[in-house]
Amino acid sequence: MRDVAIIGVGMTSFGELWNQGIRDIFAEAALNAMKDAGVTKLDSMYVGAMSSGLYAGQEHIASVMADYIGQRGVPSTRVESACASGGLAVKSAFIEVASGMSDIVLAGGVEKMWDADDGSAILATASDQEWEAYHGVTFPGLYAMMARVYMDRYGLTREELARIPVKAHRHAINNPNAQYPHPMTIETVLKSSMVADPLRLMDCSPITDGAACVILCPLDRAGEFTKNPVKIKAIGAATGPIALHDHKDLTRLDAVHSSAQRAYNMAGVGPGDIDFVEVHDCFSIAEILVAEVLGFFEYGTGGKAIAEGQATYGGKIVINPSGGLKAKGHPVGATGVAQIIEATEQLQHRAGKRQIENAKLGLTQNMGGSGGSSIVHILEAV
Amino acid sequence: MRDVAIIGVGMTSFGELWNQGIRDIFAEAALNAMKDAGVTKLDSMYVGAMSSGLYAGQEHIASVMADYIGQRGVPSTRVESACASGGLAVKSAFIEVASGMSDIVLAGGVEKMWDADDGSAILATASDQEWEAYHGVTFPGLYAMMARVYMDRYGLTREELARIPVKAHRHAINNPNAQYPHPMTIETVLKSSMVADPLRLMDCSPITDGAACVILCPLDRAGEFTKNPVKIKAIGAATGPIALHDHKDLTRLDAVHSSAQRAYNMAGVGPGDIDFVEVHDCFSIAEILVAEVLGFFEYGTGGKAIAEGQATYGGKIVINPSGGLKAKGHPVGATGVAQIIEATEQLQHRAGKRQIENAKLGLTQNMGGSGGSSIVHILEAV
Repeated sequence: MRDVAIIGVGMTSFGELWNQGIRDIFAEAALNAMKDAGVTKLDSMYVGAMSSGLYAGQEHIASVMADYIGQRGVPSTRVESACASGGLAVKSAFIEVASGMSDIVLAGGVEKMWDADDGSAILATASDQEWEAYHGVTFPGLYAMMARVYMDRYGLTREELARIPVKAHRHAINNPNAQYPHPMTIETVLKSSMVADPLRLMDCSPITDGAACVILCPLDRAGEFTKNPVKIKAIGAATGPIALHDHKDLTRLDAVHSSAQRAYNMAGVGPGDIDFVEVHDCFSIAEILVAEVLGFFEYGTGGKAIAEGQATYGGKIVINPSGGLKAKGHPVGATGVAQIIEATEQLQHRAGKRQIENAKLGLTQNMGGSGGSSIVHILEAV
Repeated sequence: MRDVAIIGVGMTSFGELWNQGIRDIFAEAALNAMKDAGVTKLDSMYVGAMSSGLYAGQEHIASVMADYIGQRGVPSTRVESACASGGLAVKSAFIEVASGMSDIVLAGGVEKMWDADDGSAILATASDQEWEAYHGVTFPGLYAMMARVYMDRYGLTREELARIPVKAHRHAINNPNAQYPHPMTIETVLKSSMVADPLRLMDCSPITDGAACVILCPLDRAGEFTKNPVKIKAIGAATGPIALHDHKDLTRLDAVHSSAQRAYNMAGVGPGDIDFVEVHDCFSIAEILVAEVLGFFEYGTGGKAIAEGQATYGGKIVINPSGGLKAKGHPVGATGVAQIIEATEQLQHRAGKRQIENAKLGLTQNMGGSGGSSIVHILEAV
């Protein structure tokens, strides 16, 4: 297998993009990425989207997007793994470049969520339709159950949990593409509407429109396009139980663990080597669970550690310098690609006020459902 | 890139499977394929489905299926390219095996269509939502426009066109998995309900429930599992205009042409070397257009040639020995995989009464929408 590099990135602002349709926002991100890489012709492309059929009435979206970005004829593949669809697009493009089949490959993600009437019901199609969604449980309810167990077992307080989204918003202030780049107080979190006890509105990532794209090529050709390519050092993917009740332990995400172990093994590194990480904080509790299973904190200690400042600048490891899903926004199909973009910009030292000093090795973790799938990438400055 | 072989196949009967859900039928096909290959553990899997969200209220279906076939933990990717989703699953699995990343990979496709209320509207999400579906045109209407141009330009009669589905049903009689394995007369076709002039009900492929799976591995390991592996000699994929009005010529399917040329080039063969073909006959006119653009007949001559018996046993080339989408059935996400299964069984000389003598090289062509995407595989007996 060939080594693979990222040579360009592009995204839209994340937020409520009422004046653009799904093809407009994907095209904006794709053309930005192609301009960043200095390429005009793709060999192949991948589009991650969770539910363009339910959100936008448009399946066959990989062909739509190839057509609309001026690449008609190019093979184009849509991939889907719920909220991990974006990470899956990058992983799939990686394999195609690594195989030797194609050189210049775009990996993008998109979701246009605000146009739909019933966003929660659409998101619930990522859970177990027969055993969860049909009975009315939605994702805030599923993650609330995880939070209950964690708080009870490890003594995490509601006030400590509130510090997770507060940190997310503090980071997002420096992200020009973030949906909510403004300060958040603990009081605001604690007074926000209850969604699924103990999770309140400010524990939940928002509904977001957005798209994000990256351009991949063989590492040995990257110099033709950029002075500072970023190597995709490893990928790891895994599935887990589709239904929450099938997890052996509600606080241990098996798919995240397996995907991370595969990536660590492929890269020959461990959590101690990682300089920063973008994780899938779809809910405040998720950031804690993922940070622990990735190996950054002992089980049961992540919540208090993050609350005490160990996951921000100057702490043990910076988690979600972008603002994460909570504050940057979470257009589900685009999120995994946006994580890769944040990691790329950090490793290229062009992250502006969010820049992490001496960032050389970054990790991204993108999750589907309540742990039904997880994709981990480890990226390295070249 | 490594050579890749098919070492096992499995499918459900195609039809109205009221007593099974989408996960049941996928599991049946997957476990049949794994049994056929003699494998119990997968390294990775791909699931092609056009619209499990709209048909079954279930996205994240690759994880659902990994879980339900006893492969929880294994990386699992859903791919979608409308009615070419199945072919795309095989292509994607091929790349992963060819890359060296994984050895034992399942490629499957599934669709559960009868449970949905508004199947035509769901299928229309594979067309251009903004310029076609929104205005009320459905796929029979789009293909009717192609048929009108072809019949007008080349003098194909309505009675000649009717001979295409008659041939499909004659082939399907020998296919135990076919949805409609019974004879069809020209009179029945000509008297069937008008759907979109000139296409009548018996020109249209049906609504179908079904699933189909194949197991891939590196060719140099195939001998561990089977005495008669089938080599995937080439793959070719292409996109085309998503909207019919963007085709330069309504009777020339550019995506089919590009995908076929890529596959012929990769295999180093031409249409004259192919012993039989499974094509995407979603409507009677489609079989003609595809057969011409694949190079089996000169442009404008395919309709009359097929009507005269040149595409059945004893003719120039057997097209759709399985009965094709028209008579075998068309569970959209599964169709491309079922084509690969028919080709595999023909090349392994286990196609029973459908067996084509001395079949050594077969081609499959799977299409999305009105030519928005096309995937071609060339398979060879080893």
